[in-house]
Amino acid sequence: MTYDLYIAARLHSSWSLRGWLMFARFGLPVRTQLLDIYGPGKDAAFAPLAPARLVPVIRTPSGTVLGDTLAIAETLAERHPDAGLWPSDPARRALARWLVAEMHSGFQALRSNCPMDLRHVYDAPPATEAVRADLARLEELWAMTPGPGPWLFGDYSLADAFYAPVATRIVTWSLPVSDRARAYVEAHLACPAFRQWRAEGLAESTRITRYDTDLPTRPWPG
Amino acid sequence: MTYDLYIAARLHSSWSLRGWLMFARFGLPVRTQLLDIYGPGKDAAFAPLAPARLVPVIRTPSGTVLGDTLAIAETLAERHPDAGLWPSDPARRALARWLVAEMHSGFQALRSNCPMDLRHVYDAPPATEAVRADLARLEELWAMTPGPGPWLFGDYSLADAFYAPVATRIVTWSLPVSDRARAYVEAHLACPAFRQWRAEGLAESTRITRYDTDLPTRPWPG
Repeated sequence: MTYDLYIAARLHSSWSLRGWLMFARFGLPVRTQLLDIYGPGKDAAFAPLAPARLVPVIRTPSGTVLGDTLAIAETLAERHPDAGLWPSDPARRALARWLVAEMHSGFQALRSNCPMDLRHVYDAPPATEAVRADLARLEELWAMTPGPGPWLFGDYSLADAFYAPVATRIVTWSLPVSDRARAYVEAHLACPAFRQWRAEGLAESTRITRYDTDLPTRPWPG
Repeated sequence: MTYDLYIAARLHSSWSLRGWLMFARFGLPVRTQLLDIYGPGKDAAFAPLAPARLVPVIRTPSGTVLGDTLAIAETLAERHPDAGLWPSDPARRALARWLVAEMHSGFQALRSNCPMDLRHVYDAPPATEAVRADLARLEELWAMTPGPGPWLFGDYSLADAFYAPVATRIVTWSLPVSDRARAYVEAHLACPAFRQWRAEGLAESTRITRYDTDLPTRPWPG
């Protein structure tokens, strides 16, 4: 009863990281398969997973292919109701779904200007106005959550899995955030499932690093 | 046990239409409230619904404010498991969630170039390449659904609610689609809940029409 999870370059594919966390953090059995989608083999890589054309994609134990991280999240939560993917309280679960959905469709400036890069911490120039607006929205949403920390809803939930890549962007791009948000970022960096993912990424042979810059770098924290 | 649904201009707000359909099509009790968010009163309109800043927003009978159409959809489906919001078969439900999630975050070219306008049918110039790519993806996703029609999964589901605005864009912008897709568009135009929404929109006094053009127009079909 093992799922297959199809991902791309671990250090750079933020949606792949979300996919991994929603298995690893909730004890769901998974085989992870790296697709080479950044070169000429992209179409061939996705062909057995049609009509998927983005990572992550899963194949359920019964053979159903399912794309889109949010559709995967809800399907896993439904299939594993005792694994704690969503908060158990209905009002908190509704809020968690709101945060996840807003991440799913929003934060375009942050996502396009500050790509995930788990290898580097850049001495980056000050964030643009659009990125600062996204950061303000992040702080507003996170401040609505009950905590008490380190995770947004007490125990780790799908909301944390969806915001994990954002935490790493804050690190990589030296983005200014509040002390509360900083503590949340540090919880993600210390998360064993995230550390395993990053270690596997550093050992991975991939054809791309999606971000190319002459900015000076500092060591990854911790 | 009535929900409040906060919407914007019915003829133009495609996400509001999705929100309305997920109540009206499934018999869920709702009071619809029009917000004036296109003028200087926007901040005041959203203040009681913080941290919402987009429509639709709902308030549940117990007073919980919930934003984001997809979070609203999943919350309603969970609260009303017998109302048939999702297909009952698990594999079909997973696919429906995929289609909904891809609509939620994608189709940017179609959405930005072909805004919803339930008043007009334009003699529009040929679609751009990016819009044609979105249309090809629509056809690909719709062709994966089991039908048998007119709706994507037999009975009307959340997937149809999410694609209803797209159906109207195909009409308004005279977009080229297959015969199968055309039949699906016509089913949306004939849907009583949609017709009620459009009639209310035509009678509505609003300060905006978001699209302004000199393109020649033809009558709305039907």
